[in-house]
Amino acid sequence: MTSAFTPSGSLDRLLKPDSIALVGASSNNSALGGRALDHLSRWQGRLYLVNPRQAHIGERPCFASIEQLPEAVDCAVLAIPADQVEAAVRQCASLGIGAVVVFASGYAETGDDEGRAAQARLASLAAAGGMRLVGPNCVGVASHRHALNAAFAGFPPLAGPGDGLDGQGAAPRIALVSQSGALALALSQAAERGVPLSHVLTCGNSSDVDVADYLVWLAAQPECRGIALTYEGLRDPDRLAPAIGEALDRGKKLAICRLGLSPPGQDAIRRHTATMSRSSPALAAAMSRQGVLSLTAIERLIETACFLAKAPDPAPQARGVAVLSASGGTGILAVDAAFRAGVTTPQPQRSTRDRLQQCLPGFASARNPCDTTAQSTRHPTLLLDAAQALLADPGYAALVLPWGRSQSANLFPELARLSRQHGKPVCVVWMSPSPGQDLLRPVEGDPTLALFLSLDACFESLAGWLRG
Amino acid sequence: MTSAFTPSGSLDRLLKPDSIALVGASSNNSALGGRALDHLSRWQGRLYLVNPRQAHIGERPCFASIEQLPEAVDCAVLAIPADQVEAAVRQCASLGIGAVVVFASGYAETGDDEGRAAQARLASLAAAGGMRLVGPNCVGVASHRHALNAAFAGFPPLAGPGDGLDGQGAAPRIALVSQSGALALALSQAAERGVPLSHVLTCGNSSDVDVADYLVWLAAQPECRGIALTYEGLRDPDRLAPAIGEALDRGKKLAICRLGLSPPGQDAIRRHTATMSRSSPALAAAMSRQGVLSLTAIERLIETACFLAKAPDPAPQARGVAVLSASGGTGILAVDAAFRAGVTTPQPQRSTRDRLQQCLPGFASARNPCDTTAQSTRHPTLLLDAAQALLADPGYAALVLPWGRSQSANLFPELARLSRQHGKPVCVVWMSPSPGQDLLRPVEGDPTLALFLSLDACFESLAGWLRG
Repeated sequence: MTSAFTPSGSLDRLLKPDSIALVGASSNNSALGGRALDHLSRWQGRLYLVNPRQAHIGERPCFASIEQLPEAVDCAVLAIPADQVEAAVRQCASLGIGAVVVFASGYAETGDDEGRAAQARLASLAAAGGMRLVGPNCVGVASHRHALNAAFAGFPPLAGPGDGLDGQGAAPRIALVSQSGALALALSQAAERGVPLSHVLTCGNSSDVDVADYLVWLAAQPECRGIALTYEGLRDPDRLAPAIGEALDRGKKLAICRLGLSPPGQDAIRRHTATMSRSSPALAAAMSRQGVLSLTAIERLIETACFLAKAPDPAPQARGVAVLSASGGTGILAVDAAFRAGVTTPQPQRSTRDRLQQCLPGFASARNPCDTTAQSTRHPTLLLDAAQALLADPGYAALVLPWGRSQSANLFPELARLSRQHGKPVCVVWMSPSPGQDLLRPVEGDPTLALFLSLDACFESLAGWLRG
Repeated sequence: MTSAFTPSGSLDRLLKPDSIALVGASSNNSALGGRALDHLSRWQGRLYLVNPRQAHIGERPCFASIEQLPEAVDCAVLAIPADQVEAAVRQCASLGIGAVVVFASGYAETGDDEGRAAQARLASLAAAGGMRLVGPNCVGVASHRHALNAAFAGFPPLAGPGDGLDGQGAAPRIALVSQSGALALALSQAAERGVPLSHVLTCGNSSDVDVADYLVWLAAQPECRGIALTYEGLRDPDRLAPAIGEALDRGKKLAICRLGLSPPGQDAIRRHTATMSRSSPALAAAMSRQGVLSLTAIERLIETACFLAKAPDPAPQARGVAVLSASGGTGILAVDAAFRAGVTTPQPQRSTRDRLQQCLPGFASARNPCDTTAQSTRHPTLLLDAAQALLADPGYAALVLPWGRSQSANLFPELARLSRQHGKPVCVVWMSPSPGQDLLRPVEGDPTLALFLSLDACFESLAGWLRG
C-alpha cells in the first residue's frame, strides 16, 4: 500500500541519510552549531562540516561553503542565524541536497507579515529543488539507525539495532513525533527509564515537513510498532486524518496529544508555530478506529503508546477487567479509577473464586479486586497463582496490578508469560510517586507487560482499547 | 484550643514515646518482628525486646514476657500472630502501657462475625485499660522525632530535627496519614525526592485510633504545616468533619484523597478494613474551607499537600494566573490545562507587556503564556526578568513555569525570592516523565517554590486555592 498523497520514500534521505553536512559547525559547545556537532559526532555516516572561518574543528576538516562539499549530501543541517538561512537553502536546493533542517527562529511564529513571507520563501525554494525542509524553528530529528541525532536538543541515545531490541523478547519500539522541540526533549527522556524509542521527529513551524509526513513515513518503517504524537497544527490540517489512517492500516498503534484544545491555547498557537488544526468528520472517524487513543495529559502520552504497542489486537471478547494487588487500599483505588473510566470490574465466576480460595490465605479476598495481602511479599507465588486464575476467567479482558516497591521484580517474566498464554494484557501500575528509573526498567523493557504511572492513565487506556 | 471530643495529648505516648517494647522481636529479617526490630533499632529511646525463646537478639537482651518488662512502656508493638494478640493486649492494658500497635490481620476485614467480634474485644480491652490501640491489620507509625519507626513497613528516613529543616530556608514539613499501610509505604517514598515528611501514621482497621484521631493530634504539633490524608473510613465517620476543622483552625493545610468513591470501591472496603465513611453537610462544609483540597488521583496527593503548605494564605485578590516557559509548546499545554481546571490566564496589562518587550528577544511572545524561547537557556536572566514583570502585574495571583531539564536549577533561589517578594506562589511543573529524583530535590527542598509533576495537578490545585 502506498500513500495517496506523499511518496513514502520521500523522507528517506532525511531520516536514513548516508551523508550529512553540518552548516555552521562550531567548536563552541554552547552554540547551536557546537551542540549539533557534539550530537552528530556519534552518527555512523559521512559527516561534513561547513564553517568559512575555521580549517578544522577537532580532527575534522571544515569546508568553507556549501558549494565546496564533495558530494550532494542527503541532508544539510543549518545551524546558522536566520539572516543566512535563505541563501543556504537556495544553495542546497540547487546542489541536489535531499533535505535541510532549519533551526533558526524568527519566521511565521513572530506573527508578522515579514516572518510569514520569509518562511514561505524557504518552502518555495525547497519545493522548487525537490528538497524537503524541516522547520524553521525546530530542534531537528533523531533515529536509532546509525545513532542519528541531527538536532541541537540533547536527545538520549535511542534503541539501536545492536542492543538486542530487534529480537524476540524485546519491547516494541515507539517513535516520538512532536512538533514542539521542547516537548520532544522532555518526552524523549522516557528512554532513561527503558522505553525503547526508535525515532524522535520534530518539525517546528512545519513549513514543508509536518507531522502528517512523519506519520506516513513511519507507517512504512518496520522498526516501530507504536507512535506517540503531539502537535499544534499542520501545514495542511486535512492531511492528518489520512496519515493517521495509513499508519493504522500498516499496523501502527497511535497515542495522540493535541495542543491548543482551549481558546487560550489556540490563541497561543497563532503566536508560536502559526500552524493550523481543524476538526472534521474524517479526523473524527480516524481517531475512533481501533489502535488509536487521544489524551489531554501529556505526561501519559508515552505510557499510552507503549500500552497500545504491547496490547493484543484485537482485544478479547470480554469487557471486564480484574484487579490483583498485595494491598487492599490499592485495590480499592484501582476499582475507583476503573469506575471513573467506565471500565467494569465484575466479580470472578464461581470456578475462578474456588481456585482463588485454594491459593490465597484465609483472610484474603477471593474477589475482584483480589487482595493477596502482604502475605504475597513473603510468598510471591501467591500472586502468580491468583494471576493465573484471574486471567483464565472468560469474564476478564485484562489484568491490572497496582505495584509497590516491596514486591519482587522477579515476578515480571512469569506475569508476562501468563499474559501471552491468555492473550490478555497485564498492566503494572506503579503506586509510589517518582520511582527511581531503575525500578521501572524491568517492566518497560518487557515485550508484554505494560507500565503505567497512574491508575487513571491505565484505566482510561484500557477503556479506549476495549471500546475499539 | 482543645478538641471537643478527643484530648489532644492522648496520642502522645504512642507518637512521642520515651520507651517502647517490641513483642515478638525476631532475629529473622524476613519476619515482621525482625523487620520491625530493624526499623526500631535506629530509634533514640529505651527499647525493650520480648521473646520467650531467645535470651538475646544481637547485643540486646530479650524479656520472656510482657509482665517481665522493667517499666510500663509508653508503647508496645505487637509483632505476633493473631492468636496471641488478645492475651498480649490484655496484659498491656493491665500494666498501664500507653498504646499498642497491632500488625496482625484476620479481624473485621475478613467480613465474618468471628473476626468482627475478635476486633471488638481488642478495642474493649484497650479502652478499659485507658490504652490506645492502633490497628489491627496495620503497618505501624513513624515520626521524625528521634527517628521513630514503629512499623514493619520500610518507611524512608523522615526529616529529623538535626537536618536543618527546622530553621529558616527550609521547606515546610508534611505529615502523611494513611489508613492503608501499602499506600503509606508507597507515598512515603516522596521523601526520596526531597519532600520533608514529619510523620507517617497508619491505622488499618481503625478499631480505636483512626484518621480523625491522627488529624486532631497533628493539629497540635508545630512541626508540620501540611497533612496528606488518604482513608477508606473511620470507626465513627461523624468525627472526621470536626477533626478536619480543628486541623484547619490550627493553621494546617490538608490534601485529602478518599478511597471507595465508587460502588465497587465501597464494596471492596467492606471486605478490607470494614470501616465506614459518610457524606454529611458538616463534612461538605469542612471540605469547602480555605486550606483543604480533595482529589481523586492518589499520585497527586503529596504534591498538592506541599503546594498548600507553601502557598500564601490568604490568596491574593487577583484571580488570573501567568504562565512563563522557555518553550511555546509547554506554554500552550499549560493554558489548556488552566482552561480545563477553570483557571483564567488573562493577558498582561500594558505596562507589564512593555516590560516584557524590553527584556525578551524580538520573536518571543510578550503575552500570557509568555515564551522566552530557547534563548533563555543561554541567557537565564531573561526568565528571571520576565518572572519579575509577570509577578508584579496585579492581574496575576500566581506564576506557573513548565520546566525542562535543559533549564538551570541555579534559577530556583532567585525565583523563590521573587515569589516571596510578591507574596504569590511560583509553581514549577516538571515536563519530562519520570525525572530522576536528584533533579527534583532543589524544588522540593525550597521553602517557597511548589513542585508539580503534571500541569493538570498544578492548575487543579491553583483552582482550589483561588476558590478558597
